[in-house]
Amino acid sequence: MTQQTRQIVLASRPEAEPGPENFRLEPTTLADPGPGEVLVRVIWMSLDPYMRGRMSAAKSYVPPIEIDAPMNAGCVAEVISSGDPSLAPGDVVYGLMPWAEHALVPAREVKRVEPGAAPLAAWLGVLGMPGMTAWTGLNRIAAAQPGETIVVSAATGAVGSLAAQLARRKGMRVIGVAGGAAKCARAVQEYGCHVCLDHRAAPDARTLSDQIKAAAPDGVDVYFENVGGKTLEAVIPRMNVHGRIAVCGTIAWYSGVDNPPPLPPVWRTVLTRRLRIEGFIVFDHYAHTPEFLAEVQPLVAAGQIKWRETIADGLDAAPAAFMGLLQGKNDGKQLVRIGADPG
Amino acid sequence: MTQQTRQIVLASRPEAEPGPENFRLEPTTLADPGPGEVLVRVIWMSLDPYMRGRMSAAKSYVPPIEIDAPMNAGCVAEVISSGDPSLAPGDVVYGLMPWAEHALVPAREVKRVEPGAAPLAAWLGVLGMPGMTAWTGLNRIAAAQPGETIVVSAATGAVGSLAAQLARRKGMRVIGVAGGAAKCARAVQEYGCHVCLDHRAAPDARTLSDQIKAAAPDGVDVYFENVGGKTLEAVIPRMNVHGRIAVCGTIAWYSGVDNPPPLPPVWRTVLTRRLRIEGFIVFDHYAHTPEFLAEVQPLVAAGQIKWRETIADGLDAAPAAFMGLLQGKNDGKQLVRIGADPG
Repeated sequence: MTQQTRQIVLASRPEAEPGPENFRLEPTTLADPGPGEVLVRVIWMSLDPYMRGRMSAAKSYVPPIEIDAPMNAGCVAEVISSGDPSLAPGDVVYGLMPWAEHALVPAREVKRVEPGAAPLAAWLGVLGMPGMTAWTGLNRIAAAQPGETIVVSAATGAVGSLAAQLARRKGMRVIGVAGGAAKCARAVQEYGCHVCLDHRAAPDARTLSDQIKAAAPDGVDVYFENVGGKTLEAVIPRMNVHGRIAVCGTIAWYSGVDNPPPLPPVWRTVLTRRLRIEGFIVFDHYAHTPEFLAEVQPLVAAGQIKWRETIADGLDAAPAAFMGLLQGKNDGKQLVRIGADPG
Repeated sequence: MTQQTRQIVLASRPEAEPGPENFRLEPTTLADPGPGEVLVRVIWMSLDPYMRGRMSAAKSYVPPIEIDAPMNAGCVAEVISSGDPSLAPGDVVYGLMPWAEHALVPAREVKRVEPGAAPLAAWLGVLGMPGMTAWTGLNRIAAAQPGETIVVSAATGAVGSLAAQLARRKGMRVIGVAGGAAKCARAVQEYGCHVCLDHRAAPDARTLSDQIKAAAPDGVDVYFENVGGKTLEAVIPRMNVHGRIAVCGTIAWYSGVDNPPPLPPVWRTVLTRRLRIEGFIVFDHYAHTPEFLAEVQPLVAAGQIKWRETIADGLDAAPAAFMGLLQGKNDGKQLVRIGADPG
C-alpha cells in the first residue's frame, strides 16, 4: 500500500529574490515505511529565512538543495504508519521533513511532541528551533547579564520576539529594531522591548545609530544580530567595550545587498562558519604577565626565540622612524636608541 | 637642581600618513622628582603602530594625545634620581614615558628590569608589550591548539614574529603573510613559518586567498590578525568552522584604506572596543535543548510568553508565504498549515 501525496521541489535557483518560477508543486508516491522509518501526515510546516541559503548553490552551513529535490522545513506531523517500535500511528512528532503533505522519515530524526504541553505549532516556534536559537544566542553565545543593555534586530520575528522577552525577564534594558510602526508598537507592547526603533523610517545608518544612542545612553552590551545591513552599521558604533555580538542571521543580505562588499561576505562567513572574532588590547591582560614570562623568558635566555630590531639613533630620528614603521620599512621591532647603556 | 632635556611633541594631527610637520622637537626643563617620582635617563624607546591612533582626535582604546603634548612610548631607562624608596639611581626600569631624553615618571608606573635576563631592548620587544600581545592573542583570545593551522599576518613584525614562533613550538601549521620576498624568506627561515605569502606580490585578495588555500589545504583554524585590508579579505573565505580570529591590529587601515567602508570602521571597532563576535548555528547546540525547555516550557504553559503566527493555508501556498517572509510581510512565526489537527 503506497501513499499518494504532493510535494514542492526546487525548480531552479533564484538570482536574487526568489520568485514562483523557482518552485514546482508535483505529485509523488511514497512507499510503505521500511525498518526504522515512519510515514507521516504533515500538519504544520515552518518557513524560516535560512531556507533562502539552501536555494543557492553556494556553500553555507547547510548543504544546498539539489534542483528537482524537495525543499525541506521543520514540520509537525502525525504518524500514520510506522516501521519503528518507538513510534505508533497517532503519535505526533516534529523534525525536518520535505515540503509535502506526507513524508517518509527516519524515526530517529524526529521527536515525539509532549501531548498537551503547548499548541502543536509552538514546537515550530517558541519551543522549537527558533526558540532554541533565541535562548542559545542570548545565553550561550552572548552571555547576556542582568542590568546590561541589549539590541535585538528583527524584534518581532520568531527568534527576535523570544530573545527580547527572555532578555527583559532577565532584567536587561531591551532596545528592539523592526521594520514599520506597527511592528515597533508590538515589540514594545507584547515582546518586552523598552523601546523599538523603525529601521525603515531611518534614512540611513547614521540616523538609526543616533536613535540607538538616545535609547541606550550608556551604550550597548549585547547585540542579537539577525539582519546585517544598515542595522549592523548603526549598532556597531554604539557597542560598549567588551560587548558581544551573537550573529544569528543576515537577512538583509539574503537576497539583496545594502552594504558594499567586502562587509557582507565577511559577516556572512562569521555566521556560516560559526567564527569567533575577538578584538583585544594587551593592557587588559597584564595580570597574566607572570604566565607569559614563565613561558617566554626561559626561551629567550636559552636563545630559542629569534627577533630582529631596526634601530634609529637619537631622539631626533624618532619621527622619521615612526613614519617608516607605518610604511613597513622596519624589520622586526622598531627601536630608537636615546642614550647609552648604563655602567 | 633641574634637568635640561629635549622632547618631541605632537605639533598637529595628521590627515592620513603622518609627516614631519606633525612632530616638533623642543627643549624642556624637568624639576627634581617629588615623592613617588623618579627622574630617568632614557636608553631605549619603542615605536609601535598603535601610536598612530593616538595622534588622531578620534576615540580609540587609548585617549588621543593633546596638541603640544609629548608623544609617548614604551621605554627602558636608567634612574638618575629617585623620590621613591623602591628605586635607586642606577636601577634600570621600563614603562610608558614621553618621547624624550629624560623623563620624570611615577615610580609605580615603571617596572625594574631583571638584570642580565636578556638584552635591555628585549623588554620592549619579545619580553615586553609586543611579546605579551603575541602570547595573549595566541593563547587567551584564539585558544590555539596543537595540530591546528594558523595564519599570522605581519609575520615578521614584533608581534607577528613571536606569534609565529610560539605557534610553531606549539605544534601548529604556520602560514605567515608579510610584505616582500625578503620578509617572507625570513618568516620561514627565522620565525618558524612553514610557508609565508607575499601580500605585495598578490594583485588582489582573491589571488592571496587562493595561495592561502594551497598552503593550508585543510583550511585555517586561527587567524592572528594584525592588518585588516586585503589580507583579511583573503583569509576569511579560508576559515574553518569554529575558527577563531584574534584581532590585534588593523595597520592596513591606520593611514589609508584599501577596502571601502563599512568594513574598516566595523572591524576597527571590534579592536578598539574589544568586541567578541560569534556566529552560531542552533544545530551545534541541540545537546542543550533540555536546559532550554526547562526554562521556556513552563513559561509557555503559564501563558507568560507571547508570540504571533502568520499562517498560510495548504502546501500550494508555501512558496508565496516564503517569498513574503523574506520581504518581512509575516508577523512572527511563518507557518503553513498543511493538514488538520489530529483526532
